[in-house]
Amino acid sequence: MRILGIDPGLRNMGWGVIDASGGRLSYVASGVCRSESGSLAERLLALHDGLVDVLARFGPDCAAVEEVFVNSDARGTLKLGQARGVALLVPAKAGLAVVEYAPNRVKKTVVGVGHAQKQQVAHMVRLQLPGALPESADAADALALAICHAHHAGSGTSLEAVMRRAIG
Amino acid sequence: MRILGIDPGLRNMGWGVIDASGGRLSYVASGVCRSESGSLAERLLALHDGLVDVLARFGPDCAAVEEVFVNSDARGTLKLGQARGVALLVPAKAGLAVVEYAPNRVKKTVVGVGHAQKQQVAHMVRLQLPGALPESADAADALALAICHAHHAGSGTSLEAVMRRAIG
Repeated sequence: MRILGIDPGLRNMGWGVIDASGGRLSYVASGVCRSESGSLAERLLALHDGLVDVLARFGPDCAAVEEVFVNSDARGTLKLGQARGVALLVPAKAGLAVVEYAPNRVKKTVVGVGHAQKQQVAHMVRLQLPGALPESADAADALALAICHAHHAGSGTSLEAVMRRAIG
Repeated sequence: MRILGIDPGLRNMGWGVIDASGGRLSYVASGVCRSESGSLAERLLALHDGLVDVLARFGPDCAAVEEVFVNSDARGTLKLGQARGVALLVPAKAGLAVVEYAPNRVKKTVVGVGHAQKQQVAHMVRLQLPGALPESADAADALALAICHAHHAGSGTSLEAVMRRAIG
């Protein structure tokens, strides 16, 4: 099963692709779709085109998208919501099943604790996906989402099993 | 110039199409794209498909999308943001120029005052677009957005000119 993880953001949309089969996880690719300038519609279109390109290049079977923290910054929530609409739409439009995971659930699954720091997440992602060199925290978060989905989608993986194999 | 107005919402996405030429406005069509059930990704896809269908049927030249009120209901803001992401994306993807208008600017343009009630907006929309029978307040709001864009896009229309013609 090939899984696409997406960490939505209007400026930086992290993405990561992994393969999960027979209890093993392997790194495929990761990156960030950026949209820093232009009108809001143009920026959403740039994110859309970036994700469409990722789907075409790596052909994932399903997608995992991070649920968004609702906080007191209403303008930030709105911006993120708009980007997240695109992050959910693109894989759904391609016919992929789209699953959402809360940030704490991702951390709990990948690191073992729900309140892990970003650096811990990135570290555990690299341990569980040998060869992975995510270019940024957004890409690492997207890979963590994909790993989380592998564990929960019943692909035969578990944090313990993957870590046993990774550590040797 | 054929203008598509979109009033974004996750449950009900209002849309309205008008023609503006030589200082005249005319009604083309209006309606509501609905997405009441399914996962969030499925609902966003249903809205996407509905808007793509509207573009294919009526071939607008440009789109006007309502800016969203940021309020204290963060969850509501997030939902609306996600739907709005789709509302901005679909016309941009089709190569249309997409313009955003704040609700108060729309009311000020269409009714003459920025704090007009929904009923006043619907009434003025019907006056300015003879033959228009918007099926709901969302569709009427979308037509109001299209009218607002006609006035501001320099199509030679003004509220006074349109009203003179409409009233006779």
